[in-house]
Amino acid sequence: MAEKQIKVGLVGFGTVGSGVAKLITEEADSIAAKTGLRLELARVVDIDTQSARPVKLPDGILTDDLNKLLDDDTIQIGVELVGGTDAAKEIQLKMLQTGKDVVTANKALLAEYGNELYQAAQQNGRCIAFEASCAGGLPIISGIRTGLSANEIRAMYGIVNGTCNYILSNMTSKDEEFADALAAAQQKGYAEADPALDINGDDSAHKLAILASIAFGYEITLDDIFVEGIKAISKDDIHYGGEMGYVLKLLAIGQKDKNNRVSLRVHPSFIARDNSLARVDGSFNAITIFGSAVGQVMYYGRGAGMMPTASAVVADIIDVALGNSATTFRHLHLKPRNETAPLIDKIGNLISRFYIRVMCKDQPGVLAQIAKILGDHQISISGTLQHEGAGPENTVPVVIATHLTQQKNISAAIKQIKTLDVIGGEPVCIRIVDIPEDKD
Amino acid sequence: MAEKQIKVGLVGFGTVGSGVAKLITEEADSIAAKTGLRLELARVVDIDTQSARPVKLPDGILTDDLNKLLDDDTIQIGVELVGGTDAAKEIQLKMLQTGKDVVTANKALLAEYGNELYQAAQQNGRCIAFEASCAGGLPIISGIRTGLSANEIRAMYGIVNGTCNYILSNMTSKDEEFADALAAAQQKGYAEADPALDINGDDSAHKLAILASIAFGYEITLDDIFVEGIKAISKDDIHYGGEMGYVLKLLAIGQKDKNNRVSLRVHPSFIARDNSLARVDGSFNAITIFGSAVGQVMYYGRGAGMMPTASAVVADIIDVALGNSATTFRHLHLKPRNETAPLIDKIGNLISRFYIRVMCKDQPGVLAQIAKILGDHQISISGTLQHEGAGPENTVPVVIATHLTQQKNISAAIKQIKTLDVIGGEPVCIRIVDIPEDKD
Repeated sequence: MAEKQIKVGLVGFGTVGSGVAKLITEEADSIAAKTGLRLELARVVDIDTQSARPVKLPDGILTDDLNKLLDDDTIQIGVELVGGTDAAKEIQLKMLQTGKDVVTANKALLAEYGNELYQAAQQNGRCIAFEASCAGGLPIISGIRTGLSANEIRAMYGIVNGTCNYILSNMTSKDEEFADALAAAQQKGYAEADPALDINGDDSAHKLAILASIAFGYEITLDDIFVEGIKAISKDDIHYGGEMGYVLKLLAIGQKDKNNRVSLRVHPSFIARDNSLARVDGSFNAITIFGSAVGQVMYYGRGAGMMPTASAVVADIIDVALGNSATTFRHLHLKPRNETAPLIDKIGNLISRFYIRVMCKDQPGVLAQIAKILGDHQISISGTLQHEGAGPENTVPVVIATHLTQQKNISAAIKQIKTLDVIGGEPVCIRIVDIPEDKD
Repeated sequence: MAEKQIKVGLVGFGTVGSGVAKLITEEADSIAAKTGLRLELARVVDIDTQSARPVKLPDGILTDDLNKLLDDDTIQIGVELVGGTDAAKEIQLKMLQTGKDVVTANKALLAEYGNELYQAAQQNGRCIAFEASCAGGLPIISGIRTGLSANEIRAMYGIVNGTCNYILSNMTSKDEEFADALAAAQQKGYAEADPALDINGDDSAHKLAILASIAFGYEITLDDIFVEGIKAISKDDIHYGGEMGYVLKLLAIGQKDKNNRVSLRVHPSFIARDNSLARVDGSFNAITIFGSAVGQVMYYGRGAGMMPTASAVVADIIDVALGNSATTFRHLHLKPRNETAPLIDKIGNLISRFYIRVMCKDQPGVLAQIAKILGDHQISISGTLQHEGAGPENTVPVVIATHLTQQKNISAAIKQIKTLDVIGGEPVCIRIVDIPEDKD
């Protein structure tokens, strides 16, 4: 069969961009053998045209002039790997307007402006493919849209930020404090110099917005997602939670109830030690999905890095070139915002179990006072832990795990506990997430 | 957007067939909303038209006459869920000849006659979609063909037979002997009344043949695969292996070396306790794949059962109806048999570590004799285990783990060990498989 020539233009020649250039140039033969497509990197655009990169480009294709890509009608596919939202949005819109399909790994952009971009693509008769935007090398988006297309997705639980998972794993296994684990992650290249987007949970929220919109079929906005990062996590709580049988992970959680109400949240979560997500260590990602027919499915692999993310970008380029992405994209029908908005659950309504730690003065009656406040708020205790030995200012940690209760009850109870004069410092409150596991 | 009507004909109204009928009839609205496709079950064919099934079909569509399906030109997609090879092959060929695309879960048929059927499909301008043939609900085939299309697949390690995994899990966790664990699996419905295909390893080999052909791009035949089942496994060996840090799994393994030589095998395998596949329990399936760009990816979920398998069948129906399967199928280029055959490695060349147990008379010098034979065959010992206490006829188990060596060296050494007069019974030999794990 004759090979079909596909010209690709790439904007953003950083880490992932270099990986994409490497795959397209070095694997062209094997991709052609497998797919019948001869990929050609026709243009690479970056403001930095001087720095050395770990790939040799064909002569003359690197430029700092975006128009050289846009004006080239032989380029069918534009890959946007600039990141960020402002310039990247302009670039994607211009690519669509000049008749190019778009492939991107830009989760922040899609989370914030996805609906606008999808519409622009549909108006221009083009498609946007974004497998690489969530969980790097894991084919989770095609998994949801193709593999699980006969299912109603009921819930998803994901470890989708490798930086946070690396930090929490080290805090757990090496008994490190947050600041030390973050520094180690930065030194290893797993965390950016400015790690805010990761450790605040925003990066996980971006990915959840994208995944939840395609899984539930809703127009999701970032405001729909409750977000709490990992900055305030202490190794002591990881340790105490561990004694109670839990492992701490930053989870992105999306759930749809029987009335089609959706709850979306990113927060530190204690999960049972024997849950499969508890064993996902270091910079790895994993996502567990519950489908109405398939039951539990888990994807596990590298969620970031040059080649894993490039693998997803090039898979999208191939899928676009084969015409499959266009078909799938044409059928991306999200329930519009006015219908979706009333179906988004507020975090106050969340029913969860909770881990609470309060530093208490070591004197009689303290536990009774706390227990009374919890009882007054209809919060039932499932376990407690109190070690001997002193904390700061002669306090001891009192750790309590609760049964299911509403978030707003906990918030009200904690507010009242803070007024007790036997308390030292801020109470810690971490959600315990009971992820169901299919069993025989 | 107007809905596109897709008429589906189903042959084989057993467990999975009932699940497919259920999904198509009960989820038609949600599938239409997501994909723009209105699936209609137009015809169901089964020799048994009387037994009750857990789904209500539209009136008049159930028949025992295959021609009613074949002759109906409005039926675009034929689903073959008869199983077995003879009748099923005829049915698929007739479907293709009458202009229908084929969706199937029939791994035995594809493993044995896949190349012939693929050719027939291509000659008729039709496609065959077979996601459901391997690992039920796990979208592993689309994962390899689409998600990992930019990768050279280097290796795959799969737990792809839920029956065997259920049996081995119970032998491990409940200290049951094989016969008892098999009986329990049969009682729970996880094993057939005739479990031969599962416990002999043949079912796993069927799936490996399909997965390896698409992953490596070779025309694979069943004869290329070395197969050893789990019938001879004793709980004692699971126990001793466990003491050495290993868990026993029936693995389907495909590896491609730097010279493009492929080795394919299904056999009981001791794997490290902390490997992610070691934690896959009960009837679940999991497949770890190593891609050149993506690194390690694992899929985990239900590999069988009515609704998980039906989920994969209906996903294929949707993919065929959207036209995506045709595109992917057109590009299924397998290296033809005459080029593939010389690239298949024989099991004798396998380099592996081995677990060996020999029942020895409890007398001086026995271990020395065995160790000498191993040394004479250039086999280096990595660990030994010998417990006090008597086996049958005053023997004790001597357990040895080896370093890497060739299969043929082990076979020769075992042959010689069997001639020792201090030996009771047949020596046990189980491969130790060191699955690499990507780490930070």
